[in-house]
Amino acid sequence: MSMAITDTTLFEQLSQKVRDCLLSKARVQEFDRGATICLQGEPTKTMKVVQSGWVKLYRVSPNGGEAVLATLSEGQSFNEISALQGRRSPTSAEAVSDCAILNIDLANVLACPDAYREVTQAVLSAASNHIDALLDDIEQLKVKTGAQRLSDYLLSLSEAESGLNEIVLPFEKTLLAGKLGMKPESLSRAFGRLKRYGVTSNRGHVRINDVSVLRSYAEQDSACA
Amino acid sequence: MSMAITDTTLFEQLSQKVRDCLLSKARVQEFDRGATICLQGEPTKTMKVVQSGWVKLYRVSPNGGEAVLATLSEGQSFNEISALQGRRSPTSAEAVSDCAILNIDLANVLACPDAYREVTQAVLSAASNHIDALLDDIEQLKVKTGAQRLSDYLLSLSEAESGLNEIVLPFEKTLLAGKLGMKPESLSRAFGRLKRYGVTSNRGHVRINDVSVLRSYAEQDSACA
Repeated sequence: MSMAITDTTLFEQLSQKVRDCLLSKARVQEFDRGATICLQGEPTKTMKVVQSGWVKLYRVSPNGGEAVLATLSEGQSFNEISALQGRRSPTSAEAVSDCAILNIDLANVLACPDAYREVTQAVLSAASNHIDALLDDIEQLKVKTGAQRLSDYLLSLSEAESGLNEIVLPFEKTLLAGKLGMKPESLSRAFGRLKRYGVTSNRGHVRINDVSVLRSYAEQDSACA
Repeated sequence: MSMAITDTTLFEQLSQKVRDCLLSKARVQEFDRGATICLQGEPTKTMKVVQSGWVKLYRVSPNGGEAVLATLSEGQSFNEISALQGRRSPTSAEAVSDCAILNIDLANVLACPDAYREVTQAVLSAASNHIDALLDDIEQLKVKTGAQRLSDYLLSLSEAESGLNEIVLPFEKTLLAGKLGMKPESLSRAFGRLKRYGVTSNRGHVRINDVSVLRSYAEQDSACA
């Protein structure tokens, strides 16, 4: 089992015994890029952990528009509460690269009475983290401009605290635009806007001349940004 | 105890015994309009249910901008998971009208062993509902224009399915703008835009000439809206 899996918040909180029990009954599924992992509204049987690759969580609105709600990578989990409570999946999930997904049947594990308290507490923690991440997203969408949200995302990929940094975008631009709540043409304009802050991009390769300059732009009041 | 309180999803799932136990230890606090109910990052001691009035959940960003994350009214609860797990409050809360808040000490209730399973399941359901609502908000912010989000909000207040409807906005326009993820001047422009769909507003009173016309506008592809 990959280290990253047991690094997820959910697993960290479990005793070795319950963790082993969960993992012994888990089942890995492989998905090709573009494949549907689950659909919004489907009954959820298992909690899902990304073992490798990238997953997009999304919803399709009544008007046909697709909203990207999250992009998940190795070690991140979803559908914990719905698996525990036998609810429907709150979002659809699609493989945006080839990926491997670990399916964990929580109802099955809860047949073991010792596991109940540990697993529900761990799922509550996961839910709390999801809520925090969603609140962060809403905060960003409400108080920051598109170019600032792009800056934040580039800074999250950047390993340096200051100075020159070069990064490779993990997604194609259409998905990145959706993730940041922009149309692809607005994303292009946002990249254009960042030129004056020393950001240049070419086919998914992004060069940041000075990370600290970009950070101070990202934290400006959006009315001035 | 108000009927609305026991109508909340959380209470609906509890047995009479556990519900009575929760409510017998609950404490009502009154807040004047503008008062702070709790601050983001404070240790959370109690789950909170709005008994009367309106509450705004918000965060202040590093740049000083305030993001309104939710507006809650009678019967709606918050900070369930943080109260159960002794975490910090994920948001700040402010009374936007005079209001009464029921404080429920979940740790205290869990001292009663029978309550554990019921209360954690109920908190999980509440968390699942919060996640759904936050996903809805993100979807709206990403795929709809400001004028469409305003239309959705007006439609949610409207009791008629079609034809003429008159509504009174429950908040002042600054808060409404924040709730919808717009600056106050963008909200004014959005109201202006809705004139052609038969919406007129005057000092918090809004008249919709034909609810079905507004609904079809709200559901249009945002690229054409």
